[in-house]
Amino acid sequence: MRPSLVLSRPDLDFLLHDWLQVGELSERPRFAEHSRDTVDAVLDLAAQIATEHFAPHNRTADEHEPHLVGGRVVLVPEVAEALRVFAGAGMNAAALPEELGGLQLPAVVNQAVHAWFQAANIATSAYPFLTMAATNLLVAHGSPEQVATYVPPMAAGRWFGTMALSEPQAGSSLADITTRAVRQDDGSYRLTGNKMWISGGDHELTENIVHLVLAKVPGGPPGVKGISLFVVPKRLVATDGSLGERNDVTLAGLNHKMGYRGTTNTALNFGEGVHTPGGHPGAVGFLVGAEHRGLTYMFTMMNEARIGVGMGATALGYTGYLHALEYARTRLQGRPLSGKAGHMKDASAPQVPIIEHPDVRRMLLAAKSYVEGGLALGLYCARLVDEEVTAEQEDDRARARLLLEVITPIAKSWPSQWCQSADDLAIQVLGGAGYTRDHLVEQFYRDNRLNPIHEGTHGIQALDLLGRKVVLGGGAGLTLLAETIMTTTARAAGTPWAGFAGELDAAVARLAEVTGTLWAAGDPQVTLANAAVYLEAAGHVVVAWLWLEQALVAQDRDDDLAAGKRQAARFFQRWELPKVAAQLDLLASLDRTVLDMRGSWF
Amino acid sequence: MRPSLVLSRPDLDFLLHDWLQVGELSERPRFAEHSRDTVDAVLDLAAQIATEHFAPHNRTADEHEPHLVGGRVVLVPEVAEALRVFAGAGMNAAALPEELGGLQLPAVVNQAVHAWFQAANIATSAYPFLTMAATNLLVAHGSPEQVATYVPPMAAGRWFGTMALSEPQAGSSLADITTRAVRQDDGSYRLTGNKMWISGGDHELTENIVHLVLAKVPGGPPGVKGISLFVVPKRLVATDGSLGERNDVTLAGLNHKMGYRGTTNTALNFGEGVHTPGGHPGAVGFLVGAEHRGLTYMFTMMNEARIGVGMGATALGYTGYLHALEYARTRLQGRPLSGKAGHMKDASAPQVPIIEHPDVRRMLLAAKSYVEGGLALGLYCARLVDEEVTAEQEDDRARARLLLEVITPIAKSWPSQWCQSADDLAIQVLGGAGYTRDHLVEQFYRDNRLNPIHEGTHGIQALDLLGRKVVLGGGAGLTLLAETIMTTTARAAGTPWAGFAGELDAAVARLAEVTGTLWAAGDPQVTLANAAVYLEAAGHVVVAWLWLEQALVAQDRDDDLAAGKRQAARFFQRWELPKVAAQLDLLASLDRTVLDMRGSWF
Repeated sequence: MRPSLVLSRPDLDFLLHDWLQVGELSERPRFAEHSRDTVDAVLDLAAQIATEHFAPHNRTADEHEPHLVGGRVVLVPEVAEALRVFAGAGMNAAALPEELGGLQLPAVVNQAVHAWFQAANIATSAYPFLTMAATNLLVAHGSPEQVATYVPPMAAGRWFGTMALSEPQAGSSLADITTRAVRQDDGSYRLTGNKMWISGGDHELTENIVHLVLAKVPGGPPGVKGISLFVVPKRLVATDGSLGERNDVTLAGLNHKMGYRGTTNTALNFGEGVHTPGGHPGAVGFLVGAEHRGLTYMFTMMNEARIGVGMGATALGYTGYLHALEYARTRLQGRPLSGKAGHMKDASAPQVPIIEHPDVRRMLLAAKSYVEGGLALGLYCARLVDEEVTAEQEDDRARARLLLEVITPIAKSWPSQWCQSADDLAIQVLGGAGYTRDHLVEQFYRDNRLNPIHEGTHGIQALDLLGRKVVLGGGAGLTLLAETIMTTTARAAGTPWAGFAGELDAAVARLAEVTGTLWAAGDPQVTLANAAVYLEAAGHVVVAWLWLEQALVAQDRDDDLAAGKRQAARFFQRWELPKVAAQLDLLASLDRTVLDMRGSWF
Repeated sequence: MRPSLVLSRPDLDFLLHDWLQVGELSERPRFAEHSRDTVDAVLDLAAQIATEHFAPHNRTADEHEPHLVGGRVVLVPEVAEALRVFAGAGMNAAALPEELGGLQLPAVVNQAVHAWFQAANIATSAYPFLTMAATNLLVAHGSPEQVATYVPPMAAGRWFGTMALSEPQAGSSLADITTRAVRQDDGSYRLTGNKMWISGGDHELTENIVHLVLAKVPGGPPGVKGISLFVVPKRLVATDGSLGERNDVTLAGLNHKMGYRGTTNTALNFGEGVHTPGGHPGAVGFLVGAEHRGLTYMFTMMNEARIGVGMGATALGYTGYLHALEYARTRLQGRPLSGKAGHMKDASAPQVPIIEHPDVRRMLLAAKSYVEGGLALGLYCARLVDEEVTAEQEDDRARARLLLEVITPIAKSWPSQWCQSADDLAIQVLGGAGYTRDHLVEQFYRDNRLNPIHEGTHGIQALDLLGRKVVLGGGAGLTLLAETIMTTTARAAGTPWAGFAGELDAAVARLAEVTGTLWAAGDPQVTLANAAVYLEAAGHVVVAWLWLEQALVAQDRDDDLAAGKRQAARFFQRWELPKVAAQLDLLASLDRTVLDMRGSWF
């Protein structure tokens, strides 16, 4: 059978079973119904639906992006059909608890399931994945009534969800949102304002769209402390669950993007007076939790979305890598150097598959180290989610929570940068062909370019990591990360990987030292000026650690997959980890080059 | 006046006059007619035509790519109109000698002129630039009759030119081309074969298209040594210069690309029998120079095209940077950290232009260092062309030729990599907006992605540099480069730039040492396995040198432009040059990770 061009099941099996020992989760009460068999079955199903229903319209949806016909958003029909199959297979509810109709699947398995759909068609997969994140937020913070009203139809895929944070005048700066929510006598609120960049913000795929909207209640504190969260359904819901009146949420326009075109991206108006539900102005919204706590709640969804964005970037890089690999194995061109006799080539010899050329192998090996590293990172985060929820000891749960907090900005940013590099390399492997729209790699490259932007830009993630996460609890987060890595390096003692482990230990120690230097600077402007470099250095250290983990699992095996893992780990050790030294030196110098640059000098 | 978003004239003036002292060229007989005034006038004219006639249809031509109507290639009409204005201003012939109707402009000025058009509209500019390169090849290697027949209409912009090298089964591997050319009794040849990736290969912009085609004459040596070069006009030309019969060159298809869409890119068939000129089968071609010397001649055009590709990449990065800069100066969002009092922000303060945020400044400063570094590199190469042609001493001419040979792969590849990074950063500065098609930065990013592919991929350039150029004449090329750089570092003694100069000296010495190590390996497979890393390291060293050059020019001035040059030089010194150490360490280790990777392990 030809290997899949979507994702590698052998790699998933290696990561889930050989490395993360997902089977052990069955020993926990929450996952008692699951076993290797159920995990295999759900992965088989995901691969099948992704390959048969998502991948085939990936290019079609790119070429025919959402457009307006008579005020309605029209998508290619394959999107609705694919999502119907997806929902029919119970995928929307896979990770939800049984009492909400879910399969109660471990998060780590669910993440692997998602990766199939993201790799097959990132744009179509965005609709249910946003919905799942919105569902999880409601389960975590909604009232019992809100959960009862919204979660079942969302879990069934009959309604979709969105997250509505940004506004035209406030992209990354949520402190500046101006959407207002005024409390009514019946306890509901009326919202007025404009939201921007809302993915899945309008379409005809489902009967209803459940918007989770950040807004300010007048009289609250300024800035992010005055933000509250509301459920604002497109159509109001009667007490019996039936759909009622149209809410005053209207489409202001569609954004036309470079890639990710199949996902409707919208500007939405709330309370513009197009509809007047109940005869009154304003979009009807229902407060989630308490007033002014909205951003905290939203971060439940946001953290999940950030890891999801990282996984999406990985999935796009992964499928790009697989496409390049297939091309390199089948495309004949050129011939190898004839060895020690000089570097002449024998022009009469037949042409060889381009994978024989070292430079092509370099690109493929680099891409492999990025995408498999990214996949390990995303699955590891999801495994921490399982630990956070189901570990027996509160201590273990707290440790998992803290580690996840520290790693989340890396899990979002690292794949957004490096798995885009994998797609860049994939184009380069195909050469001129890769630059044409005859091959998907150019679309992967366009699609993946979104990932360093949405759900918090690269720069926002950098401030989150250096400005908040590594200083949490007096630096407990970074200490925990370092300890966790050192548990791995200790296991490498006496193995062929001791050298790599030593280099990694040194990098971790240096990262901790530099973090101290940065925070000792006494001026947060100086500390944070080069935060992006810090994020990138920390990301490479973390992924190097995950490669060492994989190498240790693969060390005693003699199959091709294990040999490939070892070689990719060597690549990351020798080619990638050394890049960190220059970054940490720069940070340690408290370099002011950027800070001192004046606007007028540009 | 609002600064241009196309290119920076102040920067061009700095580079051309303050740094490269272009005025001194007027002392040479060939350029005696030129002066600062004529240079200024031609740059003014280029800026005006580029801004008024090229930039306005950049997006239009992207959205309406060339397509076939009744077998003819249809372009948006603005392309023909822009090229009519371009030709009318004498731009096609700017660098040609006066006796061929040219302005005899120095190459360095001509390169600056080109940059305006490339930055305004890379796709439209490709037509005349390919034509100029073809013209130059004919001037250099064509017979007097060929020059008389083809050059005047090409110089006038009435006919365009192409270079037809690649074939479907032989992209980068020219040894494997199979197009045949059979000599006829009248001295002409008949060609049959298929060519691929031919930019400007068919269109209705001009009365005729002059293809320069590589083909093999039966009985010649195998591989690249059996390649000959032919002029194959789309329409045959009568002895009086009038257009005659249609030659048997036919359009096999259009390629649909991710970017660069306005440039027709074609598959062409030669001698398929669609037309039978003179009643005989085969496309009529005329040998240029001698049989089997074709590749050597083609390299006249190819080297020029490679530097042109590098300049195109720079121009695309430069205009992207300028767009991002304007956005960052006008877009209000967020507020700065409030300094030493902690890193809280005052939410009641007004939002600031995003250029105030250090991370945005980091991106802009990085982009500035890449695009201004790239521009310096491209202009320096063109200045070497002038030196090669007009230096009084043969010694100086030979030195310029050798230095240009060594730098050409870098001039092609470095901007293709780093000025694409500038466009990537430009998208990131704009955030979500940058990802939409409402802004040009997303197009620049798509357009620029071609540059590491055409006219010799990144990997081909790497083999050219490490496998040929640095070992030319027993390493004379690399020695000359090192000596040239050390002339600059010597001038930095006693200045604030002595530290940078010392670091650069060390990097150059290490590069030379590593080159020796690589070639001492005794196995060209090992020597060349990691050639791409060598290319990138050498590129960064060369651009660091050009930044030191610029810093030395700017050191005693107190204007904003000079301050910006110094700060960008500091950026390159502190943020970029240190990346080279890890690359050279990797090369010095004769790392076999890539070489030892097996196909079955992927």
